[in-house]
Formats: sequence, structure tokens, C-alpha cells
Amino acid sequence: MTDFEKQISFIMELDKIKKINRQTYLSDASRKENDAEHSWHLALMAFVLAEYANEKIDVLKTMKMVLLHDVIEIDAGDTYAYDAEGNKTKRDREQKAADRIFGLLPEAQAGEYRGLWDEFEAMETAEARFANMLDKVQPLLLNDASGGKSWEEHGVKKSQVLARNERTHEGSEQLWAYAKELIERNVQAGHLLDV
Amino acid sequence: MTDFEKQISFIMELDKIKKINRQTYLSDASRKENDAEHSWHLALMAFVLAEYANEKIDVLKTMKMVLLHDVIEIDAGDTYAYDAEGNKTKRDREQKAADRIFGLLPEAQAGEYRGLWDEFEAMETAEARFANMLDKVQPLLLNDASGGKSWEEHGVKKSQVLARNERTHEGSEQLWAYAKELIERNVQAGHLLDV
Repeated sequence: MTDFEKQISFIMELDKIKKINRQTYLSDASRKENDAEHSWHLALMAFVLAEYANEKIDVLKTMKMVLLHDVIEIDAGDTYAYDAEGNKTKRDREQKAADRIFGLLPEAQAGEYRGLWDEFEAMETAEARFANMLDKVQPLLLNDASGGKSWEEHGVKKSQVLARNERTHEGSEQLWAYAKELIERNVQAGHLLDV
Repeated sequence: MTDFEKQISFIMELDKIKKINRQTYLSDASRKENDAEHSWHLALMAFVLAEYANEKIDVLKTMKMVLLHDVIEIDAGDTYAYDAEGNKTKRDREQKAADRIFGLLPEAQAGEYRGLWDEFEAMETAEARFANMLDKVQPLLLNDASGGKSWEEHGVKKSQVLARNERTHEGSEQLWAYAKELIERNVQAGHLLDV
């Protein structure tokens, strides 16, 4: 295969993330969103909200990161944030998926994108901190807009949301301040359990 | 409203493009794709395939352009490429939509993104030529993968596809050469009418 053919096969393989549903509903609560839609939303937020990053970020790198961050779910599946059992095996399943999926690309590109995915997961750079913040805040925005539908279905507790968002402030204090208000509002409205 | 609140309202308004269906099927032909998924795919292609642009492109600008190019369909709807009637009023409907939707943002950002959308439409810069090429080639890839399902449903002619792709080569000769082969293969397979 030529490099070009490898790139096209990667692009077509990734079409599958349009069929991986998340637990979060669209803002109108009509159906759950999928990974492609979620990633589109994060890439949009990455450049619209870049000014609120705590540290200066490379916006292009951040956008590549969020556009690729969920592709490993083609093999590994989506693990719901509050599924304790599924989260135990998540890491291993995702590493294997990353090997296969990024391995479809020409070597240099495979290395670059696998590096971006590892960087996102490690959360040790400004871009990874901002990207992870977006990945946490976007479902909060959708849950709030949809009247907490997914939270209510799963009986989610405020303490679980706070634990999951323990590092969200590292990406953006501004977004985290907004998210905290949103969480409180949803506790008051009974969409999140007050424990 | 603060600038931040305007930006959040823009981001939440754009959630609606997840519900705007296109005529193109996913690669497995299971259902039609929507505008958010399509835009995600274009943004991915923009950086994976950037090396094949005829002219040097600003990849970040191109990605912003493709991520935003269809948001006007929230008001204007998706007009099928081969719907002659709908395409007569398309321009006017889309201009009004752009005024309203980009107008949700703080002024400077509204101007920048409206400018990117106008630039995409005018197709006079390297980024706009590459972005428009992607917007044309991505559905060809999906139609090919899905066995020409959408083409067959609409009785699409090879001549219509070629007319629609008259300027695709301006973005990338490499991608256009690939697309031409793909079109011929689908004529041979009976998925496109040979007229």
C-alpha cells in the first residue's frame, strides 16, 4: 500500500466512531450523542474558548488531540464515566486499540498521532490539560441542557461528578468556575443526587 | 451577556447540527450521516491529508473553516447537491442564517468566523480550495464504501457528479485523481448512471 492508500484506509476506518454512542444526550434530549459528534463539539470548543486556557496552548495541536482522542473506542468501546467495573480494564483495551488503529497510517504519522493520544491520556502538557477539561465540560453542558436526563437514568451523585472533575480546573479556571455553578444548579433541581 | 456567556450560547446553539441529516450514508450504509459527523470527518481529513494540498495551506484555518462550514444549515437546512430547485434559494437562506448564528458571538469572533464562512464559499484562497475539495471528496468516499446507496436512491448521473466536482482538482490534484478513479469504478459497478 502507498502512504496515500494507508491514509485513506485510516480515514475510512474512523468512520466507525459515528456509530459509537455515548451516555450523554443531545441538548434537546432526543437521543444520545456519538463519538464523532462529541469530538466535533470538542474541536469547536477548543478554538472558540482557547482564550480561557490557564496556560498558552497550541490550538492546532489541541484540536488534533480532541479529534482523535476517542478513536480507540472503535475497538475498546465507550466506557461510561461512572461504570467502575468497565473502568478497571479500560486502559489495557485502549492501548491495544491505539496500536492497531494508529498502525494503519504511514509510520511517521502513526507515531505523531499515537503520541498525541498518549499525551492526552497523560495530561502533563498545557494542550492535554485543556483538551481533558473540554472532554469533561462538554457533557456537563449537554447534561444541563437536557435536564440531567443521563444523570437521572444512572442515579449519578454530585460527589461522583466532582471526583471525575478533580483536575478540570487545571485546563481552565474560568470553565471550571462555570461548571461548578452548573453542577450546583443541577443538584438544586434534583438532577444530581446531593451526596 | 458577557463574552463568555455569548460563546457558550454559540457552542450550545451549534449542538443542533447533530440533527441535520445529509443524503450520504455512513460507510456501512446503515443510516445517513449528519452535519456534525460530516464536519468531524472533514477536520480529520484536513490534517491527515494536508500534504496533498496543491498550495501550502494554514491547517488550523482550514480546520476551523470545515468545522463551521455547515452550521448555517441550522436555519437554512441541508440542500441536496442534485436538488436544482432547492439550490436556487440556497444562497439567500444561508446568508440570513450566517448573520443570525455568527451574530451570537462577541463581535470580533463573529467577524472572524463569518469571514471564514464567506472565504469558504468564495473559494478564492488556498485554504478554501482545499476545504471545498474535502467537502466534495468525503461524500464520494462514503458513497463508494456504501455501494453507492445514496446515488442509486436518487438516480444520480456521472455527469452530475463531474459537474459538481468541476473545481475539486483546484484543492488537490492527488485527491482528484483518486476521486476520478472512484467515480469510474462506480459507473462500471452500476452505482452511477453512465450519462
